[in-house]
Amino acid sequence: MNEQPNEPMNNKMNNKRNEQHGNLKVLTGVSFNRIHIEDGFWSPRLQISKDVTIKACLDMCEKTGRISNFDKAAGRMDGEFSGIYFNDSDVYKVLEGAAYSLMHNPDHELESYADEIIDKIAAAQQDDGYLNTYFTLVAPDKRWTDMERHEDYCAGHLIEAAVAYYKATGKRKFLDVACRLSDHMYNVFIEGKRHWVVGHQEPELALVKLYHVSGDERYLQLAWWFLEERGRGYGVGEGIWGKTEWGPKYCQDDKPVGEMSDIGGHAVRAVYMYTGMADVAAVTGDRRYIEALDRLWSSTVNRNMYITGGIGSSKENEGFTEDYDLPNDSAYCETCASVGMVYWNHRMNLLHRKGIYADVLERSMYNGALAGVSLDGKKFFYVNPLMVKGEHNRQEWYDCSCCPTQISRFIPSIGNYVYAADDNSIYTNLYISGTADIALGNGRVKLTQNTRYPWEGSVNITVEPLDITGFGMKLRFPGWCRSCSVKINNTIVHDIKFRNGYISLEREWASGDSVTLEFDMPVEMVHADPRVKANQGRTAIQRGPLVYCFEELDNSKGLDDIVLGSDVKFFTEYRPGFLGGVVVIHVQCGEKTYTAVPYYAWNNRGPGGMQVWMKEA
Amino acid sequence: MNEQPNEPMNNKMNNKRNEQHGNLKVLTGVSFNRIHIEDGFWSPRLQISKDVTIKACLDMCEKTGRISNFDKAAGRMDGEFSGIYFNDSDVYKVLEGAAYSLMHNPDHELESYADEIIDKIAAAQQDDGYLNTYFTLVAPDKRWTDMERHEDYCAGHLIEAAVAYYKATGKRKFLDVACRLSDHMYNVFIEGKRHWVVGHQEPELALVKLYHVSGDERYLQLAWWFLEERGRGYGVGEGIWGKTEWGPKYCQDDKPVGEMSDIGGHAVRAVYMYTGMADVAAVTGDRRYIEALDRLWSSTVNRNMYITGGIGSSKENEGFTEDYDLPNDSAYCETCASVGMVYWNHRMNLLHRKGIYADVLERSMYNGALAGVSLDGKKFFYVNPLMVKGEHNRQEWYDCSCCPTQISRFIPSIGNYVYAADDNSIYTNLYISGTADIALGNGRVKLTQNTRYPWEGSVNITVEPLDITGFGMKLRFPGWCRSCSVKINNTIVHDIKFRNGYISLEREWASGDSVTLEFDMPVEMVHADPRVKANQGRTAIQRGPLVYCFEELDNSKGLDDIVLGSDVKFFTEYRPGFLGGVVVIHVQCGEKTYTAVPYYAWNNRGPGGMQVWMKEA
Repeated sequence: MNEQPNEPMNNKMNNKRNEQHGNLKVLTGVSFNRIHIEDGFWSPRLQISKDVTIKACLDMCEKTGRISNFDKAAGRMDGEFSGIYFNDSDVYKVLEGAAYSLMHNPDHELESYADEIIDKIAAAQQDDGYLNTYFTLVAPDKRWTDMERHEDYCAGHLIEAAVAYYKATGKRKFLDVACRLSDHMYNVFIEGKRHWVVGHQEPELALVKLYHVSGDERYLQLAWWFLEERGRGYGVGEGIWGKTEWGPKYCQDDKPVGEMSDIGGHAVRAVYMYTGMADVAAVTGDRRYIEALDRLWSSTVNRNMYITGGIGSSKENEGFTEDYDLPNDSAYCETCASVGMVYWNHRMNLLHRKGIYADVLERSMYNGALAGVSLDGKKFFYVNPLMVKGEHNRQEWYDCSCCPTQISRFIPSIGNYVYAADDNSIYTNLYISGTADIALGNGRVKLTQNTRYPWEGSVNITVEPLDITGFGMKLRFPGWCRSCSVKINNTIVHDIKFRNGYISLEREWASGDSVTLEFDMPVEMVHADPRVKANQGRTAIQRGPLVYCFEELDNSKGLDDIVLGSDVKFFTEYRPGFLGGVVVIHVQCGEKTYTAVPYYAWNNRGPGGMQVWMKEA
Repeated sequence: MNEQPNEPMNNKMNNKRNEQHGNLKVLTGVSFNRIHIEDGFWSPRLQISKDVTIKACLDMCEKTGRISNFDKAAGRMDGEFSGIYFNDSDVYKVLEGAAYSLMHNPDHELESYADEIIDKIAAAQQDDGYLNTYFTLVAPDKRWTDMERHEDYCAGHLIEAAVAYYKATGKRKFLDVACRLSDHMYNVFIEGKRHWVVGHQEPELALVKLYHVSGDERYLQLAWWFLEERGRGYGVGEGIWGKTEWGPKYCQDDKPVGEMSDIGGHAVRAVYMYTGMADVAAVTGDRRYIEALDRLWSSTVNRNMYITGGIGSSKENEGFTEDYDLPNDSAYCETCASVGMVYWNHRMNLLHRKGIYADVLERSMYNGALAGVSLDGKKFFYVNPLMVKGEHNRQEWYDCSCCPTQISRFIPSIGNYVYAADDNSIYTNLYISGTADIALGNGRVKLTQNTRYPWEGSVNITVEPLDITGFGMKLRFPGWCRSCSVKINNTIVHDIKFRNGYISLEREWASGDSVTLEFDMPVEMVHADPRVKANQGRTAIQRGPLVYCFEELDNSKGLDDIVLGSDVKFFTEYRPGFLGGVVVIHVQCGEKTYTAVPYYAWNNRGPGGMQVWMKEA
């Protein structure tokens, strides 16, 4: 789409790219617009997302003045800026969600409404490409002076929304706004030779998306440059760097990104940054980035992640304290951070082609992230503890409403995480029913997936190749599962290749060939690393990808008096009408019976205590 | 059947019975003659048992002179006693097996042949009821002078065979022989007021069987008296008591049975004795016996049992050494001892109504016992190690051939262990397809069980009640299983009662009601008690009730070089034509693949190493 000749890339970045990229074979994610989801678990959620969540978020964006800020900035309406300085981002995030949603559930009314809002956004863009209603309305002369004021963060969300809307509808208006804004940033920082540290990471990953859709290498370079600026003492501004208890570490500005090893600071900023690093490294092949990401991933997943896939144990910094400090009652586990874990682990999977990253993605998606929204799609958790003694309820909106709008864009985006591919293999990462149309080498393959996942472990995938026959189907053997059987055309496969977490089936595929996977899905009693003090002598219940919890509603007060003995037995029961249809687990312990429900479904029947990690005899 | 007035029971026994039996509610096993097995796993084994094993054992009994010893003792044939002094027992054991087999597979020829042998046995019985061909032919004047010479042991096997043959065919001739022999023993010991310690326990449990089928309390009293004689210094004779390294402990004569706590000595003698104790206690209610059995069971199962359900780690005494001494390569694990574990645990289950005993029964049955016979039914293990580096092969016969004849009577007897009942409940202990006709209160219930157990965890049981509707179905939740679902008439059961290892379904049953159980059956990695030195740093693979092993044939030399890491994954594959049809487990460990097969099926494809407990990373 971008016809103009690309700017030459920064030499340093180009050098890395040429030197190091030879060995790196990165997967391509199969984008949501190649996927049609028709799934017992997810389709109702996509419908609710469209009918309720996105609408409710748009309503709140209207009511709170987030949308009229654009009219005001465009001079179409009088009045002052309303709300917090990063409120533009919420509008972009809901629009991004609307874009994904239009693929699953075309909706002329929603699309027209989105077009109207995009018109307002476009009208608010300044002649030089700058776009931020807070600065335009409040302090037009202070543009790009305070690194903490989220101008770049909002720009990133605009870019993500614009790319999604372009992919979903083919309409370019929003994308052009994004390009102009990105060009503006390129001019200010790269051409202007200014130092700048992004206060809340987000534009990095967004700019790589824009690079991929536009082909314009300046956007990649800017993303890379934003990352490279960090940890060199350039970070100054209000709010973060100055606060002694936070300092540069809070926003990951304490050392160059390629030297990082331990996750720290604000959780959402951290995972957004790692996502951007992975996106950049996937193109440049920078081993320094990849090795840093590997260290950071190990630090996160092995020492700082909750069983729900949530991260960030402390309310104080909305982030990390020290390794293995994972309290259950005061767990912060911001919904946005769980969604960020999906983003980051998706990129790690593409980089390394290993199922283990999709395992973490799935854990964060089905537990930490999904708990962020009520079953009716109307209410949201910002904070997701694993133990509640008093009350902790979802709310319809927050002053800082990043989590509701995060959910509004995340749920309809799940198509992005189902498949990935290279020239001769399709990687199936998630088990979700529906169809996909996947470009493979010089051909295409249509896949039809059928499963009752996450309630049952059976998956059937039918293959229809077009202009290609010899290719590999790589099927993730989920981390929660220990044993399975594999059939092709109803005949068991004897000689299975298994590598990096994938069952690898290579053959000449014929139209209608079907692969059947039977993943054993018993109830499991899981134990934490013994260094996690909060979980010593405790066990959590998991079945398939779902972590379970105990609610007072089903049991009684005093959940922490429950002790699960070694003789505990579990009865599973799929209840269609209960909590939107869930497998309930009846826990038999001696002559006592308790009931556990999926963690994501808790707090949907009124207030009450909840607990994930139970005492064990 | 026994018309004469019973002798008064020994007062002491009667007193216990009256005092203590009030609280004891003992289950009744549903006898094999009420069961018809039609099962994918067991029916072929029953057929092979009849066509091959029983025939082969009868042939060997003929060839080795075991049967002609009876002709000689009857004066129908000239010649000396042939073989070992307890060889009569082998003939009885095969006849017992033939009796069970006739229920599953009626066979006129086999029945006629059994009748002929029974005629010979009856002819060899002395006028006073005595029957032992060794003493009659070799030392008629030494009858009942050497406690170790197995006259009582052989008598016990005669009684068991006679009871089984009576139940299977309704013919009384053999049973009458058994009664006359038992009367003889009663006269010699009880009437004769002689002290006597049974050298190799067996008549105790047999006499209780005879008591139940005849109603003659003298047989119960004699069983009880045999047990009570032990541990009081009466034991003398050749072979055992005199040997300093063995002494009275070898045959459990070191203390009164009611005072015992720790299993020790010869394994088969021990479990036969415990079986007899449980049989006596089930009638008398003697708490001293029951408490001793509970201690002995804990000693056995928690500290001295292999994962295969085998017991007896030492070749020296064919039995026990010290707690947790469970070497794999030098494991003795006599086939007879594993079968004895089935007998004992069956009785413990009836006494206590707890599923845990059927769990052990199942473990011993599907692993330690079943490994005792080749798939073609022709060859037998006496010793069942869990690790073989060189050669260890099944043989067609042994000079001391207790194990082959044990298998010949055990396999067709499995119908005895499927169900148990009291007045208002049916306990399902094993999952084996077929039908059962069970007396319950004043009515009867016909059950039809359908399952692919042990390969799959689904079980369907259809209920047809006659003259009774309100009763309980108690379904064992297998110990190997952690989670299941339960349906009645295809509707999931919400409110399950679970107690003592049984799923309890109580309702008014209608004809055709069906219960469906889905037991999750993943591959499991099992760990031994850390005090078992041989298994430190090792893991074994189990799926459902089956323990798996690695054979060199499927892998390579150096099985102990295999190390299973934490990332190991299992692919299960049911191979119909392989090893009689088994689920093979392909073990994926990094990029290495190994193959595991059911332990019971090992050494069926020629010689080679084998290993159960594998190194673990």
